[in-house]
Amino acid sequence: VRRFIVGVMGQGEGADELSLAQALELGALIAKEGWVVLSGGRDIGVMKAVNQGAKQIPGSLTLGILPSSVVAPSPDLDIVVVTDMHNARNNINVLSSDVVVACGAMGAGTASEIALALKAEKPVILLSPDAESTTLFLKLGKGGVRIADTPVQTIATIKALRRGQIGSETL
Amino acid sequence: VRRFIVGVMGQGEGADELSLAQALELGALIAKEGWVVLSGGRDIGVMKAVNQGAKQIPGSLTLGILPSSVVAPSPDLDIVVVTDMHNARNNINVLSSDVVVACGAMGAGTASEIALALKAEKPVILLSPDAESTTLFLKLGKGGVRIADTPVQTIATIKALRRGQIGSETL
Amino acid sequence: VRRFIVGVMGQGEGADELSLAQALELGALIAKEGWVVLSGGRDIGVMKAVNQGAKQIPGSLTLGILPSSVVAPSPDLDIVVVTDMHNARNNINVLSSDVVVACGAMGAGTASEIALALKAEKPVILLSPDAESTTLFLKLGKGGVRIADTPVQTIATIKALRRGQIGSETL
Amino acid sequence: VRRFIVGVMGQGEGADELSLAQALELGALIAKEGWVVLSGGRDIGVMKAVNQGAKQIPGSLTLGILPSSVVAPSPDLDIVVVTDMHNARNNINVLSSDVVVACGAMGAGTASEIALALKAEKPVILLSPDAESTTLFLKLGKGGVRIADTPVQTIATIKALRRGQIGSETL
Repeated sequence: VRRFIVGVMGQGEGADELSLAQALELGALIAKEGWVVLSGGRDIGVMKAVNQGAKQIPGSLTLGILPSSVVAPSPDLDIVVVTDMHNARNNINVLSSDVVVACGAMGAGTASEIALALKAEKPVILLSPDAESTTLFLKLGKGGVRIADTPVQTIATIKALRRGQIGSETL
Repeated sequence: VRRFIVGVMGQGEGADELSLAQALELGALIAKEGWVVLSGGRDIGVMKAVNQGAKQIPGSLTLGILPSSVVAPSPDLDIVVVTDMHNARNNINVLSSDVVVACGAMGAGTASEIALALKAEKPVILLSPDAESTTLFLKLGKGGVRIADTPVQTIATIKALRRGQIGSETL
Repeated sequence: VRRFIVGVMGQGEGADELSLAQALELGALIAKEGWVVLSGGRDIGVMKAVNQGAKQIPGSLTLGILPSSVVAPSPDLDIVVVTDMHNARNNINVLSSDVVVACGAMGAGTASEIALALKAEKPVILLSPDAESTTLFLKLGKGGVRIADTPVQTIATIKALRRGQIGSETL
Repeated sequence: VRRFIVGVMGQGEGADELSLAQALELGALIAKEGWVVLSGGRDIGVMKAVNQGAKQIPGSLTLGILPSSVVAPSPDLDIVVVTDMHNARNNINVLSSDVVVACGAMGAGTASEIALALKAEKPVILLSPDAESTTLFLKLGKGGVRIADTPVQTIATIKALRRGQIGSETL
């Protein structure tokens, strides 16, 4: 009965309009598939938007891995896991995800999550990434990193990974 | 929409028959209330039993905080959070629980969780504890520790905590 | 060239006079042996005192494992490791120690460290402990816990452990 | 008496000849300044080389933050801190360093450390980096990232940071 978990990473304070809009749509699409949305849990940026999107869908399940017991969680979280480990919790975010999606141009926090995901050999999808992150992570990913332009394409890529049509170590 | 989480701690390899039976019953009772069951997630002892009990109830939700990415999770978990932090994850177990229940005689791992719960000022219920743990944790708990003899009594105590009929800092 | 590390745990805010005096003396005695003093690193209670004692000895080395990047470290620390993991760092304290000493009556934090030390099968010495902690941890320790009345006796016990005159899994 | 700590990050299994040679030289140069060498502590690659270099200098101090209690530590470590947190310990590496140096072309682990260092606003020096990492981290670093071609130049940059001739939030 273990649920399939899609981790959605992205900027908090620095998220731009496109990232927020795509995170909102992606959250809803993940929820429609019956998958769990995992995020860093804060009430800002991509984290906030992806949970908002997911909770538009009845029966959705949102899981937030909070950095601290004093930071405000997104109000759209069903399950709040409190780590009090600050950015060391980024490793838990990726280890607990079956696939990791980075939404939009990366800040340092998201870049750390994608690097940790590659270290853990998790499949990674970069949705509308910036050029510099794309170049580095395609190189480091050795075939485990895909690019998507839209949330719909992101879902299609996850489905292809699950069907084994494209390779993945862990799905 | 944040769900209420009851953390159930207890021995893995060393759990005795009473602990296993009470964990099974407690898991079902927590699920019947619509609360989430949180455990250390391993497929053994109290962790295994409490998830088994919960999954007898339709609509239940079980959350496991795994110590490692190589240890086997309980098959009755809906949500698996992988920490790869070994026993340091015990602190996440208690920080993520609204109330912490220790089920049965304690081993060293459970004792660490109850001590960490008291440090974090979480309300604690000891269900059928051994005498030595009871003595120490009642002293350390300064009023935040309750004793229960049965799973039914444990649920009643949680409800009283939530209604504010007995004191609690965090419920 | 790996240095032998003695972890000294004990209360912060709640430490009593005896604990502080014994921690001060113990720090000096550990340093005289050429061993490293490890503590939780805060500028209060047993942590502060044991580092103060050690730094009275030329050539001493004090290592503090800080819970947070914003808490004040003891001014007598040579090496400050910043974890930002709050009480989850207690597990690092014990895993990094060759032997773990609890100094004085225990609070919840110290009790969690001793429980985690036993879980990790580290040798433990309780120096002037309270009765309730003694009873529980002697039971949980299954032969791995010793009691000492004085810092001098604590050092003698560590030496006996190192010579193998009394059993230990890890020394 | 808190010692100044230089964290040296770099590849383990994948380190190339230049990285190893520069890590060896850098370790010796850091030690000559009387600074502590911090590394991820494993007995391979840049971690092994930087500790080897440092221990050629009398009075040097090497500190390793090990990911696990079962992995072999570098034999040139004076102080071994065992985290059992696997790659989540990368955050401790950077939080405990006054300045973070990435030695050579980056793998995913090192990239995560540099991203976490920037998140924590630690000053970063990239020694002989690959082009892709340079481009991303100069962009993410907003002035907090410097490039060096040699270990000697790395030391000069650290000294300039400490004198405040170039900006730094934390030195």
